[in-house]
Amino acid sequence: MANPTAQCIAEYAELDKEYEQLQDIHKEYSKKVDEVRAIQRKCMSHIAHQRYRMRQIGDSVRRANSHSDGEDKDALKILSKNMDERKSHFRELEEVLPHENGVYLKIILGSVNVSLLSKQDKYQYKEDYERFKFYLSMIILIYALLLYFINMRVIDAAFQFLLVWYYCTLTIREHILKVNGSRIKGWWITHHFISTACGGIFLVWPDGYTYNAFRPQFVGFAVYLSLVQLLQYYYQSGSLYRLRALGERRNMDITVEGFQSWMWKGLTFLLPFLVGGYIFQLYNAYVLYGLSRHESCIEWQVYALAVIFLVLFLGNMITTIAVIRQKILA
Amino acid sequence: MANPTAQCIAEYAELDKEYEQLQDIHKEYSKKVDEVRAIQRKCMSHIAHQRYRMRQIGDSVRRANSHSDGEDKDALKILSKNMDERKSHFRELEEVLPHENGVYLKIILGSVNVSLLSKQDKYQYKEDYERFKFYLSMIILIYALLLYFINMRVIDAAFQFLLVWYYCTLTIREHILKVNGSRIKGWWITHHFISTACGGIFLVWPDGYTYNAFRPQFVGFAVYLSLVQLLQYYYQSGSLYRLRALGERRNMDITVEGFQSWMWKGLTFLLPFLVGGYIFQLYNAYVLYGLSRHESCIEWQVYALAVIFLVLFLGNMITTIAVIRQKILA
Ligand SMILES: CC(C)(COP(=O)(O)OP(=O)(O)OC[C@H]1O[C@@H](n2cnc3c(N)ncnc32)[C@H](O)[C@@H]1OP(=O)(O)O)[C@@H](O)C(=O)NCCC(=O)NCCS
Ligand SMILES: CC(C)(COP(=O)(O)OP(=O)(O)OC[C@H]1O[C@@H](n2cnc3c(N)ncnc32)[C@H](O)[C@@H]1OP(=O)(O)O)[C@@H](O)C(=O)NCCC(=O)NCCS
Repeated sequence: MANPTAQCIAEYAELDKEYEQLQDIHKEYSKKVDEVRAIQRKCMSHIAHQRYRMRQIGDSVRRANSHSDGEDKDALKILSKNMDERKSHFRELEEVLPHENGVYLKIILGSVNVSLLSKQDKYQYKEDYERFKFYLSMIILIYALLLYFINMRVIDAAFQFLLVWYYCTLTIREHILKVNGSRIKGWWITHHFISTACGGIFLVWPDGYTYNAFRPQFVGFAVYLSLVQLLQYYYQSGSLYRLRALGERRNMDITVEGFQSWMWKGLTFLLPFLVGGYIFQLYNAYVLYGLSRHESCIEWQVYALAVIFLVLFLGNMITTIAVIRQKILA
Repeated sequence: MANPTAQCIAEYAELDKEYEQLQDIHKEYSKKVDEVRAIQRKCMSHIAHQRYRMRQIGDSVRRANSHSDGEDKDALKILSKNMDERKSHFRELEEVLPHENGVYLKIILGSVNVSLLSKQDKYQYKEDYERFKFYLSMIILIYALLLYFINMRVIDAAFQFLLVWYYCTLTIREHILKVNGSRIKGWWITHHFISTACGGIFLVWPDGYTYNAFRPQFVGFAVYLSLVQLLQYYYQSGSLYRLRALGERRNMDITVEGFQSWMWKGLTFLLPFLVGGYIFQLYNAYVLYGLSRHESCIEWQVYALAVIFLVLFLGNMITTIAVIRQKILA
């Protein structure tokens, strides 16, 4: 056998050659990254220009429409329709371009780019988000069930801290989803912000008469809510899976009509539980309001939570009705 | 003048031509993105392979070293040195390649890519992080000064909530920094985690004898800490600015020695304040421990905070000493 030292040196020399190759690849990679950036900027400024001209032409069309008739009106109608279609194309083009972070993400994350540049990545991210909610709902459910048997303010506090953390994390992820084009309604994000505050107020509610009076109902509500969230998971992830299959048009089992009928079935199943949750929220508000007028109530938390639960009830109810209305009309 | 309808249609037709151009650009962009991804993967797998082979050769070198002498030993020494240099080259190559998120970011953000792929972006992100700390320290300072004059548990609670949020946000940003190659010590991140918990425990500390006994000291500590953080800002952002100028080698005013001497001046100024802060933490631990043994103390928060402050004192002291030692040795 050869001298071990010589062998080491020989092996390293060979690796060295491969390293040169790597350097070439890396140089090419760096060049390509610069190229992509340049063309990305070009693309974005083109779209901005198109949007700008579209707005101008849109104004002209409106003006022309107000003093024209017959054939002209028809021609303008067709033009408007074309322009609307074009606008939806812009959205498609933008799907694979980076997006700027909103204020909230700028504050929390800074100006790091969280754009997902392919449909596949977006889908995975959304799936990940649903799974995260699923696991945490499970944990919250089990913890809440334990709270039935163990009654210690510290353990309650840890639970409430978990809620604060969970909802806070949700809002961050939902903002990332939004940057990446999800049409999630603003209210659901606001809802999670308010829930964060709600958890925080429960957290600082000192042990005492009112706390212990409301505690069983709080635990019951937490159990109910996490059960509903588990049901919601099946609806949302099912819908996500089907929408993806529809988008890919590869899986021919699923048609638009098929999706619609599945969605309505899912919604009809889910809705009673959701509405039950909203009514539970209203009931919480009612009970807390009663407690806040009790003579031995000295905590501000009671009244504050009554107001918050009322707001949650109203916002959820109104948004859900609006969503259903929209779906029926569509 | 021409018919307004005809004019609209003509203008749109012109825009249409430009749209075709945009489509071409977009197609090229999508193609380039795919190319970048492919070459990125290639680059990463090459580096992984080099690392793997390096480890193997490293083992051989160690084995060869144990039974060789004289010339061979010298040759192996040179080889080892070359290999170490090579490894630091890998790090440089990886600077512009995406990095996988750690567990914490995966949980909070999901698997979104937060890599900053250029030195410029990294620098900006770091600067942004320092500025964020600066502004928030300012806000915390002013708020803490207000607490001297206003004594209401709700307003204290809002302050403590702000601390929880602030430190929590810091840990997120620091993990993003870390993914992007910052050599920030693990302890400082842990420190901010513990500070988050610390804020949370202050938050749930109910109003009462012990809370009010410790409150003035808590407010004083908050004021002191935010002042120190403002000083730290000047050191960190100055050091960042100079390191960047060094890295660019364009600005010839700054040399490595110049940076070193500036750094030591900055550190000598900053250190007494830092150590003052650590001693303040130790003192907090001491006072809280005393309070926790008081007969009217029924709150677990008191003892828990005493332990936490002791841990913070120890961790900060040890890490700072280690950092200084490292800098002296370097
Ligand atoms: C009513 C409901 C079932 C409708 O769901 P849907 O059919 O997905 O509604 P939309 O078509 O408006 O969805 C638009 C987008 O928002 C998302 N979305 C809808 N509701 C969401 C929610 N509560 N949280 C997060 N994302 C939501 C959808 O996934 C979809 O995302 P996409 O654009 O990335 O594909 C759903 O909004 C829901 O479950 N709401 C109840 C939430 C609640 O009140 N929880 C507390 C219970 S007491
Ligand atoms: C001691 C100290 C001044 C040294 O700073 P330094 O010279 O930048 O230290 P290092 O050379 O080890 O820095 C390595 C990296 O960690 C970063 N870093 C160091 N301390 C940091 C801190 N406390 N927070 C965030 N980042 C820090 C540096 O910016 C540098 O980043 P880079 O790799 O991206 O360039 C600094 O660590 C410090 O201010 N610590 C005190 C924090 C503290 O205790 N606060 C509470 C006061 S009671």
